[in-house]
Amino acid sequence: VLNKNKDVIASAVTNLDLHDISRAAKTYGVKTFYMVTPLRDQMDLVARVVAHWTEGSGSVYNPKRRQALELIQVQETLDAVVHHIRNRSDNKKTPKTVVTSARQKAGNLSFAGFRKLLKTGNPYLLVFGTAWGLSDNIIAEADYVLAPLKGTTGYNHLSVRSAAAVIFDRLLGRLDDSNVT
Amino acid sequence: VLNKNKDVIASAVTNLDLHDISRAAKTYGVKTFYMVTPLRDQMDLVARVVAHWTEGSGSVYNPKRRQALELIQVQETLDAVVHHIRNRSDNKKTPKTVVTSARQKAGNLSFAGFRKLLKTGNPYLLVFGTAWGLSDNIIAEADYVLAPLKGTTGYNHLSVRSAAAVIFDRLLGRLDDSNVT
Repeated sequence: VLNKNKDVIASAVTNLDLHDISRAAKTYGVKTFYMVTPLRDQMDLVARVVAHWTEGSGSVYNPKRRQALELIQVQETLDAVVHHIRNRSDNKKTPKTVVTSARQKAGNLSFAGFRKLLKTGNPYLLVFGTAWGLSDNIIAEADYVLAPLKGTTGYNHLSVRSAAAVIFDRLLGRLDDSNVT
Repeated sequence: VLNKNKDVIASAVTNLDLHDISRAAKTYGVKTFYMVTPLRDQMDLVARVVAHWTEGSGSVYNPKRRQALELIQVQETLDAVVHHIRNRSDNKKTPKTVVTSARQKAGNLSFAGFRKLLKTGNPYLLVFGTAWGLSDNIIAEADYVLAPLKGTTGYNHLSVRSAAAVIFDRLLGRLDDSNVT
């Protein structure tokens, strides 16, 4: 991901990203939440946090939290995630990658377009970046770039936790029934 | 709010609630984010955090964060919030209160119904609870109870940060099609 000065960095994992994004993933039926970091100590830390809530005392204290954090898989690279998805017993297909970006571009995949793709049953890997967003090479190598999430003002700085929840709701929430009407 | 055992408590303020909810509020044009706590030390703490980002070194380090956290007003009670809104120079009307709840009930205000109300230009105060949700008396005294936010699974445990972002998007972010298609 990028830092404030547009350098490519590995960001530190934010504990509440693990909780909020896994809870949103569980709410909307996302199969797996892959947390990707090349930093070995961060990988270990995430594994410890997840184990606390899925196997440790946290799992007894709050079983609802266990159901969410069980969706987390830690991986070192995006390539490893693609490989992991391809080798799932429920799958055996290479996922298409869809990256999120705050920049509007010609050729962006629309939310409606992505909803249509999801109905095919093929696997999709939706990629969010922390810090100042995904690096250019990650965006360049993706199959699709999702249209930026806009509100109603010019302000375009949601947290990755908020953006993930809203994007799940737009892509997977029931747009046609009593839930939104 | 309620704790895990349904006792009425005052919860501790979560720092990322201040950041995430104010950023979502700014994105969707919410006028003010009132943080309500009866605990004097928590009120002081929130004021200090907000001042750091709106006036202190945080405002220079990240001006975008300043624009969001400027929306935060700390109040001791919900009544004080209603009073504050009634006395705004841009308003002079008593706001209707709309509470959020995970329980589906007859008489819930639908998202479409709330969107219609918002178009009247009258002030509305949308109330979110931390911990295990708003207490019964807060819900009983509200003008409306918003329909629960549901995903596509039975799992219904979004963080308040995620719920606020999705609800803002449903109420305020989908007024024109280009934004969701």
